[in-house]
Amino acid sequence: MLFTLGNNKSNMDPMLINFKVLYVLTQLCGLTMIVLVGTWIGQHFGGLGGTDNPKQEFNWHPLFMTIGFIYLYGNSILIYRGFRTTRKKTLKLTHAGIHMAAFVLTVIALKTVFDSHNLVDPPIPNMYSLHSWLGLSAVIIFCLQYVAGFMAFLVPGMRENYKIALMPLHIYFGLFGFVLAIASAVMGLTEKAIFAIPNYSTLPSAGVLANIIGVLYVVFGGLVVYLATEPSYKRKPIPEDTALLTANGNE
Amino acid sequence: MLFTLGNNKSNMDPMLINFKVLYVLTQLCGLTMIVLVGTWIGQHFGGLGGTDNPKQEFNWHPLFMTIGFIYLYGNSILIYRGFRTTRKKTLKLTHAGIHMAAFVLTVIALKTVFDSHNLVDPPIPNMYSLHSWLGLSAVIIFCLQYVAGFMAFLVPGMRENYKIALMPLHIYFGLFGFVLAIASAVMGLTEKAIFAIPNYSTLPSAGVLANIIGVLYVVFGGLVVYLATEPSYKRKPIPEDTALLTANGNE
Repeated sequence: MLFTLGNNKSNMDPMLINFKVLYVLTQLCGLTMIVLVGTWIGQHFGGLGGTDNPKQEFNWHPLFMTIGFIYLYGNSILIYRGFRTTRKKTLKLTHAGIHMAAFVLTVIALKTVFDSHNLVDPPIPNMYSLHSWLGLSAVIIFCLQYVAGFMAFLVPGMRENYKIALMPLHIYFGLFGFVLAIASAVMGLTEKAIFAIPNYSTLPSAGVLANIIGVLYVVFGGLVVYLATEPSYKRKPIPEDTALLTANGNE
Repeated sequence: MLFTLGNNKSNMDPMLINFKVLYVLTQLCGLTMIVLVGTWIGQHFGGLGGTDNPKQEFNWHPLFMTIGFIYLYGNSILIYRGFRTTRKKTLKLTHAGIHMAAFVLTVIALKTVFDSHNLVDPPIPNMYSLHSWLGLSAVIIFCLQYVAGFMAFLVPGMRENYKIALMPLHIYFGLFGFVLAIASAVMGLTEKAIFAIPNYSTLPSAGVLANIIGVLYVVFGGLVVYLATEPSYKRKPIPEDTALLTANGNE
């Protein structure tokens, strides 16, 4: 259960109260970001559509990238910090599960952008922009991390010293991919704003909204990285984690 | 002196050999990035110019931001990791000095972009793009950090417990501002590529170069953050640091 530390607030570690406030703020920021992306594509770009309308099909790209490759990716990182009294094995499976959901949404988001480029007349070239180079790099890093993390930390049998050596790299590249996803997202907003918002330079409502979404991406990213790296927020092993080592197979 | 650990390589800590390799790679990446920005604006956008030629005056913006707000900012962060046998006080002054140089270049880079917007006919609006919002936020964070860091860690008299409380925030927001500078830089490249490279979508040489510069920004940023945060690379206090506490004023 989230932040379970008893009901008596006066007994609560002040550090964990800080954590709780920032965690709630992160969720509010993330959810607002998703709602605003939905509003943005709905109000200004015709909403969502299928392959018969490539311009509307494109709109799945920012929406699913925001939900999957930013919000779920960030929340999956925070699983170990937010659920302190859940045992480690459950957290690992949840981490892998949320990451899988993020991956599925990301793949759909990639498919819709390629479709929307290929199905218009004349077609728009794929993979030319810096946004596409860095964005795809972030997706590749994410996939490599998933495979490496799965093999090392979920499949049994990896030697303990390999796990210990891999963990700091798993953490570093996990955060690196996440921050790169956000950098790619603000570049994507810039592209869309320039290509599709008439008179962006006069800041019409679609332009202001684009900029606010970009600011929210950055604030969400900053909060996730802070919560994930501040040493005092680190989860401490609970008795059940150790029990698993001696009662393997009984979970 | 940089990495002074004696000449006998066999005695060298393997962790510090890793550090040294990555540090050199960071410098090569940073210098290449600067040279390529110079090449990019020189070959494709007419080089540098004064107020009589706003389009050329603009070119100072990417050049000085790259040198000041990315390369020097990053190197100033790394001062404490790269120069392990220099005493703390000297490192602090160097950190403040390089940051001041970064600040001066950044201010010039801001002035030239405002000039280049205001002096063309018709003028280009200022501060409308997400690039400008996030870029200026990064500059403001940098300035606040400078003032707070100067008051707390250079001016004598700040109480020790305030310093201890401020240090993690100084480190976090220092890295946050640096990463935000890089995110702003890749957005700036995107804007310039779309506005000023004919047929960017067919990836002409100016477009490829823009993308390569963007990738180098990200690699440089990733290396700086890794070197600055990996705990085993942390500088350990040297005898001279402690000596200062007892022989204050004799440095």
